[in-house]
Amino acid sequence: MNIAIIGIGLIGGSIAKDVRKTKYASQIIGVDSNQTHAEIALEHNLVDCVLPISLAIEQADLIILATPVEISKKLLIEILDLVENKIIIDVCSTKKSLADLVKDHPLRGRYVAAHPMAGTEYSGPNAAVSGLFENITNIICDKELCDYDSLEEALLFFNALKMKTSFMASEEHDIHAANVSHLSHISSFSLALSVLEIEDHNPDEIKKMAAGGFRSTVRLAKSDARTWEEILLDNSENVLTALESYIIQLNKFKNVLEIKDRIQLNELIKASNKIGPIVDSISKTPEEIR
Amino acid sequence: MNIAIIGIGLIGGSIAKDVRKTKYASQIIGVDSNQTHAEIALEHNLVDCVLPISLAIEQADLIILATPVEISKKLLIEILDLVENKIIIDVCSTKKSLADLVKDHPLRGRYVAAHPMAGTEYSGPNAAVSGLFENITNIICDKELCDYDSLEEALLFFNALKMKTSFMASEEHDIHAANVSHLSHISSFSLALSVLEIEDHNPDEIKKMAAGGFRSTVRLAKSDARTWEEILLDNSENVLTALESYIIQLNKFKNVLEIKDRIQLNELIKASNKIGPIVDSISKTPEEIR
Repeated sequence: MNIAIIGIGLIGGSIAKDVRKTKYASQIIGVDSNQTHAEIALEHNLVDCVLPISLAIEQADLIILATPVEISKKLLIEILDLVENKIIIDVCSTKKSLADLVKDHPLRGRYVAAHPMAGTEYSGPNAAVSGLFENITNIICDKELCDYDSLEEALLFFNALKMKTSFMASEEHDIHAANVSHLSHISSFSLALSVLEIEDHNPDEIKKMAAGGFRSTVRLAKSDARTWEEILLDNSENVLTALESYIIQLNKFKNVLEIKDRIQLNELIKASNKIGPIVDSISKTPEEIR
Repeated sequence: MNIAIIGIGLIGGSIAKDVRKTKYASQIIGVDSNQTHAEIALEHNLVDCVLPISLAIEQADLIILATPVEISKKLLIEILDLVENKIIIDVCSTKKSLADLVKDHPLRGRYVAAHPMAGTEYSGPNAAVSGLFENITNIICDKELCDYDSLEEALLFFNALKMKTSFMASEEHDIHAANVSHLSHISSFSLALSVLEIEDHNPDEIKKMAAGGFRSTVRLAKSDARTWEEILLDNSENVLTALESYIIQLNKFKNVLEIKDRIQLNELIKASNKIGPIVDSISKTPEEIR
């Protein structure tokens, strides 16, 4: 199996690292419009060679599209036009807009829409980590639109990465992704902005007060601006619904603090504690364990 | 040096663990109104003995008050009445209300107000961890109100725990604590409430979408309700100021998403990225590394 990975950043690079540990691929071809990223991917032996996209598609049996969502939209159509009996899997964090784009394409069945639920706050090929996907959930959307052999090959591929695959409609995926993942990012971006502003951008004052709790809560504010600008805009409707719900919860805290209502404040915190057993069951990423 | 630790929970218990590794204390006396906590502290060898509070104060040279803030307020006055030439250090997360309470006490100088900036989302003596304070900032407030020997002994004590001590006015402390630590907790509590509500309290749906990023951002929502109810109420004025600033930042995201302003969204995320180098310099807690 020849694999082409288009976009050798955090996700594409981590896929390359893990695929290489298996016998799944005979060759890993890298494609990246960023020359420096391409060179790093070769130096770190993430890929066997770097090729222009048209040559890579020609030589590949399986194409992994791991670019930011706006580029993926453009490339997905171009690649489907050339895909023949090959398979293309995208790994974007939003799924509905891509699904809509290709829904009438004659070769729609060659495309498998996936979202491996893994990542870190870092980006680029230097951020690629081994074992990023192990035991992590992978979501495949709209499986009924895939050709039988495309879906089967995609499952073999994600099984090789040791992922647990679930199925969902792309519309449903985008709602849940907004509620959980995308909202967490905005919560963290806003916390960073707020702390920087009220502490007059004075790193020494912030450091004095910042313990592990703050670092953990604000960690996602280190995420790549371009990647997240594209995700949040592509899923803006669902993200807005989630964000409005979040602001409502924050205003509950504001109200109980204003009237100093001890009982209601305790009840709010106790209700939030219910997330504990749920998050305790999520596997840690290698980055977090480091 | 005989030390009495009043409240052998996460903080008191972790202090006991680390003090025991040094030659600083000849005896560690535990005090806890929760009989189960007292028994666990003895079983785990956190303390040498458990005594009623009056006996513990009698036998101790240094008293560490590590109870939730409301109990600490009550106990601080009672202990100062009996303190003679002993020293009492409290380790509460808020400092101004305690300072106000004892400002006219004839033995005010025996009291050292401290806030070791360490903790985890867990509570009770079973949550006590070794090395929790190593290389972490400790804040001592209003040092000019301490007797010379009280302050000197407190510095020896925190140095034995390998902490880096900074000084601040208690009023200033509470503002910065609200901006950084207390706001992070509300951000996390609200994220948990929001996700639980919009996902209809369905753990399976949340787990599918929850990767490391969500776990990190929501981690503080596992914090003890009673401890945090008391901290947030005790510092409600400063917390409200910080919370209002946070809601303003979230509304900025809401506005740019509503008008789909790509440039402004990118600028907001890029501005939030500036927190990166600041948080990267904060030491990890043993709990986080696990």
